[in-house]
Amino acid sequence: MDSVKISNNMLERMPIYLNYIKGLPKSTKNISATKIANALGFGEVSVRKDLAKVSDGGRCKLGYVCEELINDIEEFLDIKHFMNAVIVGKGEFVKALLGYDGFSGSGVNIAAALDMERKEIHDIEEKETYPIRELKSFCKSHGIEIGIVMVPEENAQAACDQLIEAGIEAIWNFTSVYLNVPENVAVQNENIITSIIKLRMQMKEKSEAGL
Amino acid sequence: MDSVKISNNMLERMPIYLNYIKGLPKSTKNISATKIANALGFGEVSVRKDLAKVSDGGRCKLGYVCEELINDIEEFLDIKHFMNAVIVGKGEFVKALLGYDGFSGSGVNIAAALDMERKEIHDIEEKETYPIRELKSFCKSHGIEIGIVMVPEENAQAACDQLIEAGIEAIWNFTSVYLNVPENVAVQNENIITSIIKLRMQMKEKSEAGL
Repeated sequence: MDSVKISNNMLERMPIYLNYIKGLPKSTKNISATKIANALGFGEVSVRKDLAKVSDGGRCKLGYVCEELINDIEEFLDIKHFMNAVIVGKGEFVKALLGYDGFSGSGVNIAAALDMERKEIHDIEEKETYPIRELKSFCKSHGIEIGIVMVPEENAQAACDQLIEAGIEAIWNFTSVYLNVPENVAVQNENIITSIIKLRMQMKEKSEAGL
Repeated sequence: MDSVKISNNMLERMPIYLNYIKGLPKSTKNISATKIANALGFGEVSVRKDLAKVSDGGRCKLGYVCEELINDIEEFLDIKHFMNAVIVGKGEFVKALLGYDGFSGSGVNIAAALDMERKEIHDIEEKETYPIRELKSFCKSHGIEIGIVMVPEENAQAACDQLIEAGIEAIWNFTSVYLNVPENVAVQNENIITSIIKLRMQMKEKSEAGL
């Protein structure tokens, strides 16, 4: 497939399709956009358009061959290009992320954590945690492409700067700080406070609509 | 302020403004939209429009009185209306969320976790974890408004159904499963796989743009 312009909404839906189709019983060989739309509560037109953008395998009445559609979505999402990441930070969220086994579906491996405070190597969740002075050499030797920032707010920009100096081209930012990065560096902000506030705003809207 | 139509982007920026203004030195009494825009790397026009929507305290040349602006944003985000939440689930992410001390800024308190497997009460991060059979009575007695779903995928819909049966009107979903809920229930999906895939798509775009 050629590169296609995609909306944020479509990008949100893609991993959900993938997850749903992968979770179908092995005996299900084909799947239609209609069935996916009904199962996931999405509009049929959106699903049809989304799938047509990533796969040309849709057949009238038969739908898509599941295996082919999984392959096309994974190719579209570039998941097969495997990437290594490191975390800068410590604490319970770092531990949880290091121990999380669901990342394989996103083509990302978290290789290690680097702690800005500790001076010696130690293990968390069977992965090694290094002192921050090792960052540059670790990134070079392990081909790290993604840096995950999970430090206290006051250290967030410093951690980000060190990751960029170590050659990282993508920052996954779990702090609520706005990070300054060069134009070539991608940033994805993960802010649970923003997220729960969005939930609260939805509640308010529903309440005002008399639901 | 009356209820105003807000965009998703504005909602993303609001907690960032709040965080930034709260973090300013105590000696900073006033702040302008221009200064906020420059500090956070946002467009000045967007910041000006956002702030005008939530506060009428902006004065030519002087900008906003910090304390008033904080108050107006918090009122707009309805943060002062405090809400209680429970988690259904277990594991490292549950532990991290229970121990996270950053929620106060969002007006949410996580009161406890309920485990679908354990039969007895035990403590995690100084908060009690109850067996799931206690869910309904716990929600009633503690005025719980938000249910957080952090169970394995195959239990996600069941956990969600039990929360709704217990009277919950908002679901914060950390699984990658699409949850079916009645029209009056708000759902906010938190999917770290979607998030890292978005980061990867940004990287791809930058690389294709020759950056």
